[in-house]
Amino acid sequence: MTGVTLADSVLYGHLWATDETRALFDDRGRTQTWLEILAALAAAQAELGIIPPAAATAIAARADVDRLDLDAVGEATRRTGHSTLGLIEVLQRDLDAEAGAWVSWGATVQDVTDTWTGLVARRMLDLAERDLEAARRRACELADAHRDDVMLGRTHGQPGLPITFGVKAAGWAAELGRHGERIAQARPRLAVGQLAGAVGTLSAWGDRGPELQRRFLARLGLGVPDTPWLTARDRVAELVSLLALATGTLARIANEVYNLQRAEIGELAEPVPDRVVGSITMPQKRNPERSEHVVTLARIVRAAVAPALEGMVGEHERDGAAWKAEWSFLPAACTAAGAALGLGVALLDGLRVDAARMRANVEAQRGWVRAEPVMVALAARVGKPRAHALLRAAAARGAERGTSLRDALAGDADVRAALDGVDLDALLDEAGAPGPTDALIDAVLERWEPRP
Amino acid sequence: MTGVTLADSVLYGHLWATDETRALFDDRGRTQTWLEILAALAAAQAELGIIPPAAATAIAARADVDRLDLDAVGEATRRTGHSTLGLIEVLQRDLDAEAGAWVSWGATVQDVTDTWTGLVARRMLDLAERDLEAARRRACELADAHRDDVMLGRTHGQPGLPITFGVKAAGWAAELGRHGERIAQARPRLAVGQLAGAVGTLSAWGDRGPELQRRFLARLGLGVPDTPWLTARDRVAELVSLLALATGTLARIANEVYNLQRAEIGELAEPVPDRVVGSITMPQKRNPERSEHVVTLARIVRAAVAPALEGMVGEHERDGAAWKAEWSFLPAACTAAGAALGLGVALLDGLRVDAARMRANVEAQRGWVRAEPVMVALAARVGKPRAHALLRAAAARGAERGTSLRDALAGDADVRAALDGVDLDALLDEAGAPGPTDALIDAVLERWEPRP
Amino acid sequence: MTGVTLADSVLYGHLWATDETRALFDDRGRTQTWLEILAALAAAQAELGIIPPAAATAIAARADVDRLDLDAVGEATRRTGHSTLGLIEVLQRDLDAEAGAWVSWGATVQDVTDTWTGLVARRMLDLAERDLEAARRRACELADAHRDDVMLGRTHGQPGLPITFGVKAAGWAAELGRHGERIAQARPRLAVGQLAGAVGTLSAWGDRGPELQRRFLARLGLGVPDTPWLTARDRVAELVSLLALATGTLARIANEVYNLQRAEIGELAEPVPDRVVGSITMPQKRNPERSEHVVTLARIVRAAVAPALEGMVGEHERDGAAWKAEWSFLPAACTAAGAALGLGVALLDGLRVDAARMRANVEAQRGWVRAEPVMVALAARVGKPRAHALLRAAAARGAERGTSLRDALAGDADVRAALDGVDLDALLDEAGAPGPTDALIDAVLERWEPRP
Amino acid sequence: MTGVTLADSVLYGHLWATDETRALFDDRGRTQTWLEILAALAAAQAELGIIPPAAATAIAARADVDRLDLDAVGEATRRTGHSTLGLIEVLQRDLDAEAGAWVSWGATVQDVTDTWTGLVARRMLDLAERDLEAARRRACELADAHRDDVMLGRTHGQPGLPITFGVKAAGWAAELGRHGERIAQARPRLAVGQLAGAVGTLSAWGDRGPELQRRFLARLGLGVPDTPWLTARDRVAELVSLLALATGTLARIANEVYNLQRAEIGELAEPVPDRVVGSITMPQKRNPERSEHVVTLARIVRAAVAPALEGMVGEHERDGAAWKAEWSFLPAACTAAGAALGLGVALLDGLRVDAARMRANVEAQRGWVRAEPVMVALAARVGKPRAHALLRAAAARGAERGTSLRDALAGDADVRAALDGVDLDALLDEAGAPGPTDALIDAVLERWEPRP
Repeated sequence: MTGVTLADSVLYGHLWATDETRALFDDRGRTQTWLEILAALAAAQAELGIIPPAAATAIAARADVDRLDLDAVGEATRRTGHSTLGLIEVLQRDLDAEAGAWVSWGATVQDVTDTWTGLVARRMLDLAERDLEAARRRACELADAHRDDVMLGRTHGQPGLPITFGVKAAGWAAELGRHGERIAQARPRLAVGQLAGAVGTLSAWGDRGPELQRRFLARLGLGVPDTPWLTARDRVAELVSLLALATGTLARIANEVYNLQRAEIGELAEPVPDRVVGSITMPQKRNPERSEHVVTLARIVRAAVAPALEGMVGEHERDGAAWKAEWSFLPAACTAAGAALGLGVALLDGLRVDAARMRANVEAQRGWVRAEPVMVALAARVGKPRAHALLRAAAARGAERGTSLRDALAGDADVRAALDGVDLDALLDEAGAPGPTDALIDAVLERWEPRP
Repeated sequence: MTGVTLADSVLYGHLWATDETRALFDDRGRTQTWLEILAALAAAQAELGIIPPAAATAIAARADVDRLDLDAVGEATRRTGHSTLGLIEVLQRDLDAEAGAWVSWGATVQDVTDTWTGLVARRMLDLAERDLEAARRRACELADAHRDDVMLGRTHGQPGLPITFGVKAAGWAAELGRHGERIAQARPRLAVGQLAGAVGTLSAWGDRGPELQRRFLARLGLGVPDTPWLTARDRVAELVSLLALATGTLARIANEVYNLQRAEIGELAEPVPDRVVGSITMPQKRNPERSEHVVTLARIVRAAVAPALEGMVGEHERDGAAWKAEWSFLPAACTAAGAALGLGVALLDGLRVDAARMRANVEAQRGWVRAEPVMVALAARVGKPRAHALLRAAAARGAERGTSLRDALAGDADVRAALDGVDLDALLDEAGAPGPTDALIDAVLERWEPRP
Repeated sequence: MTGVTLADSVLYGHLWATDETRALFDDRGRTQTWLEILAALAAAQAELGIIPPAAATAIAARADVDRLDLDAVGEATRRTGHSTLGLIEVLQRDLDAEAGAWVSWGATVQDVTDTWTGLVARRMLDLAERDLEAARRRACELADAHRDDVMLGRTHGQPGLPITFGVKAAGWAAELGRHGERIAQARPRLAVGQLAGAVGTLSAWGDRGPELQRRFLARLGLGVPDTPWLTARDRVAELVSLLALATGTLARIANEVYNLQRAEIGELAEPVPDRVVGSITMPQKRNPERSEHVVTLARIVRAAVAPALEGMVGEHERDGAAWKAEWSFLPAACTAAGAALGLGVALLDGLRVDAARMRANVEAQRGWVRAEPVMVALAARVGKPRAHALLRAAAARGAERGTSLRDALAGDADVRAALDGVDLDALLDEAGAPGPTDALIDAVLERWEPRP
Repeated sequence: MTGVTLADSVLYGHLWATDETRALFDDRGRTQTWLEILAALAAAQAELGIIPPAAATAIAARADVDRLDLDAVGEATRRTGHSTLGLIEVLQRDLDAEAGAWVSWGATVQDVTDTWTGLVARRMLDLAERDLEAARRRACELADAHRDDVMLGRTHGQPGLPITFGVKAAGWAAELGRHGERIAQARPRLAVGQLAGAVGTLSAWGDRGPELQRRFLARLGLGVPDTPWLTARDRVAELVSLLALATGTLARIANEVYNLQRAEIGELAEPVPDRVVGSITMPQKRNPERSEHVVTLARIVRAAVAPALEGMVGEHERDGAAWKAEWSFLPAACTAAGAALGLGVALLDGLRVDAARMRANVEAQRGWVRAEPVMVALAARVGKPRAHALLRAAAARGAERGTSLRDALAGDADVRAALDGVDLDALLDEAGAPGPTDALIDAVLERWEPRP
């Protein structure tokens, strides 16, 4: 029975990992990839005459997890206390002695697992790029569709000036886009394998080592590292950081949905399938649980950054303490990131925007959020400090009495005097336009809208 | 197929979780405990006449995970998108309609899971206390047995003055003991359950709520919380912090073994079962992999502290983002801590101490680590600054020429003049005694040796 | 010019450190305490005949930072590259040769700084205990005063059932109280000094070492450690963890104020002095900047926990990398915690509670938050699943049409049939009582109200 | 008096910040840059006819911190509780009313500080790039110079196979090089300013906003952001992550020096100026304190990553809690990183390499680290499993008796039989060559050696 961690749970697995990342990390998927790595190594070694071609062929033929007794591998792993010897022994049992002898020839556990890490990195970057682009496309659509939907801009949790929902969504698109850029730049650095040998000198294969590594990694579609990276774990730390950065943005969007879905605000709502039950005790509840879960998942990803960075300070030519920590935090970070990415896309895809409520919330501020042009006009006449003091006093009185900005200004002799000759109504109407938001949105669309 | 995270792996599970913590967290163990919680709730409700006694009896009879179709629970959980409704639905399917209606009456998911968290906390504190005491007992034995085994004290990675291995082990015992003290103090605070209802007012049960909670938790052997703690997650953060503190000390001990096992030092060695293979490519290797793994596991536990502390800033009466994060980091922290504790005890139990090598390493310093009494004697005659300068110069020359402290001092006219009349040999012999180490060890034994 | 970090800034220092913590950590305060430590050491050594009484008297007479040339100490520190030799040299310059020779006799930098750390721990625990108690007293007052002020309980950011503000404040009081308990338990463990000598064997003072340490620390009012703790840094990690836990709770309260001060909610407001300007560009703004800043400060404290825990894995008899990190994160954590504590008390002291708005927000939910007793009544008649489905459907229709719970129920033939004979009005009125909140509040007051 | 945090200490400031970063962050340096930002804004506004040219000229003339009364700014900052109003008020006091009114026209605190953050980012990336290149140059020189200096490769802290010091240094160079690549890619993304106005719509300047921002930032040499980033803090998180990654590598190198400088190993040593005192109580000590301090500083930088990532989840159009946290962790991270970079370069520059000791340490292993070719030869004859078992048994006996590999093999009848006809001496001699290390080094030099 499993499910010690929820990514492996029969009950809750679907919330903590997607099928895609599950396939990458579960015993079966991981072992299948390791088998393919061993087969690619054997094939490259056969090409260079290091091992007999028949051995490589036989190893390739067994590179199929469905033909492997995983329980036996587990038993041998526990018996030998060695991370790959169990797998190798069971493979050898399945192969003739000749072929068996050449499994993982000269390679170490870390050659296999680091090459696997390179494949994981490539896959995770691909998944992230795909989902980030889907999220960005949707954010661009929202920016364009809602460019005229005025809503409250809020600072420090308080109504500030009006913005449009379009400009808010454009900000999401741009931030998502920057992550795409980061990933594209990092991919060649991260999607590399490793054939370092026991101490990073490729010693087992002599002068043929570098060429063997090239052919081995070419078969897997991975780049060749500039030099062995047994204890140079900047790549792993960078991968986890990138995932934390990307999911951080999804958490920002999700947290925004959570807050704007508050009953008292009601401007956005996450999609809730009909069959989903929010609360047993409160049947009327519609909880933003997806939004919350994106925030949760981002925290889990972020928590992996500390051990990833700490793991960079590895010792000598192999550092078990730092390296094995990756075995724990890398699946944790990647599955949580994968789940957050999928959920983030779904959240944006199904997002419900209530433009009428947005407008109503602006109006509920009785004009106070449109004080800026009055401030500008006042300042031009009585100077900024005096203008600020006048408006501040008017606001204090207005807050007390619940009057609108218009009424408060009209009822304030000092303000009236200062604005003598100014058409207050025109000034306040003008305030409806929340700045050059179209230009801001267009700039984002031009820079960041995904091309077909 | 599972094993997405290694605690659930057929291959590597044994390294990342013990059977004890596995039983606590896996789908079966967790669900069994949830069933017992539901049964205890029903029983207490029956006692107070809130639900029919027959319903409580029927619910108790089904509180057996072996009679539950977990796959069906998983399916219903996914369908409803609700964390316990799946379990409740399947239970109801197995019960008659009357009893089924009263499952989890008035309680929320969080009542169930927080009460489970209280049980987890109690169990983890018990496990930690037991293992910390076993480790402490062994450290006390080492302190006593090796009180006369002189070794190098090292500061900044460099030989300082001699110490004894006994005094080093005594330091371990004391630190382990302080964790035991912390756990004993925290237990009553942490081993509490929760029956808060929808918003922390126990509203579903009216005035009977507090009494219901008392009886419910008494059945589970848990304390009653001072008040609902739906978003007051200091207990969870404290639990994770305690585990991180305790495993931090085990990591310190393990790291010490790792370093003192270096071939160039060779003073300590971790036990290696005969059948264990250190390296495929280097058959002669004896790697301190257990020590490394304790360090690894401590990093994993430590990484859970950040989200645990962040989760304290929960909102309002329930905060899904903070609470659900616990579902991920709590099993991760507890399983890693449990594994680290078990491994730490085994490490200390089998620790091999090479007292001869310790002594040889002291001797290899050619007396330089015994300069302190010379410094004291010199300072008494020529003042501290001059004494320091004389010894520093002698040391620089000694390092260059490879001479011993004795020879360097004897060959230095200034030192000889300053120490005129002093018996250098006696002075240097006296230096063999590394301070009041017996008193230090006895104080630790008196304070921290576990009583039978 | 300073202010590299804002605690030291002429402009912003007041936001990042209080005068109390500043006095503890700034060059002057820290050095004054170090001088007192050196004087206490000399006095204890004189008592035991280790150094001449006159030397101790002379050292005590110079234990006054106002008589010390700190710039000269800085210059000597840079020149020698040693952390206390600069201070010692300048002191020796000010003393006669005889007394000068005995400054810091046999003690190391770490003896001085760890003893200082013990004093810092004691002071920080005192400050925290005082401020936590003040905050708790105020929370208890709020709990009592607002026990009848009904407000929305919110879960997942959505209206749930009604609670009272009193019960919310009681939850704050209890959590603050638990921190006080933790601090009281930790104090004897943390408020200890250190006289370990070069490698933790007190070797410089021979058999008199333990007695010297006792007398030395008694003079400073510090406890005697169970054994030297040069690389056993659990105390430091515990101190930082305690501060992070305590400020985490203040951040929870502050975040609650921030959210309930949203213009759309308006139930709480932090006090804003008249002279404070929220925004230059938006004069009408009243920002919850204190609340935000408590959250900020708690993040800074929390960030120190990771290096504090990492620092537990120290090597051998002194580990410069781990120990010196404390020099950075300890002042950072303590000043931020001190500022957060002070601000948290002020926030609670001046908190403005708008009970009318609370009530209005409940009413604005048109009864839907009072569905629980209807659910209970329905379930008793048609079973829980059917009851849930009926209410859920009614809620969906109600949300669509904006009708109240009462109207939705009255207009629903199925509900009417199921509740045939039930007085709906009485049922819904009953729902006004949000559970046994008085009992909950009284339990908290009894357990946690500070006694005079 | 300051020095609350050590970067500001008269005594210890030199260890925690360089003059370069100090100039960036201290009250004077930061304020000077803010004045220049205000002047650039005024100049751009004058160009566009938004404010009178004379006002811009007057503001520029006062953009000199030496003419500013910083204490008065501090007083006004405390009085208004506003982050830039104090500065603006004092400036206005120094300007005529006309010019004074136009200071910071339409801009908010965050416009000023985010633009400053952009300048900080640019400067930090420049410093990091320069120091990383210097370190990389030195690492390349070491790789080339020591390509034939054979030393122990160590895995899990134990001797593995021989490597060369050149190949180790090449690994450092490559990792340092990758950071340079990351920085170059990130610079255009990070070195941008901000003119967002109150809520990120540039509303105060109407349609002229985007053009104003372009001209304003061009004057400061900063890029124009793709869209306002008031709560899109990925740039800040990326900057801190980059610094953590880069200093992580320096910490790896420093930790390697620390370990290889152990007296028992003695292969590397950090430079120690003659005047530096390692220990008062142990005058002979030569501590690797620089190496340790690089490790310490890297931990401090790393600790800033958590709040930087957490700060990405900002709310709405301005989030004080997240943004103000940057005011604390950004200077902390940048000063620590600057100090680590400077120290890292110095460490590599002065690194002392003891090639003779390296060779001696290899020899002390009595041939056992050269077992790999024997393993290869044996495996070719008796199969890998049997070869492994033979060597493992021989090693166990050898370890027990202290015999060399050669003697152990020669004395083992089974091995002799298996290797019948093989020239054991030739086989073991061949083992001296630690793989294709020249090719590895050349590949690194070709890819990563800085070009003049």
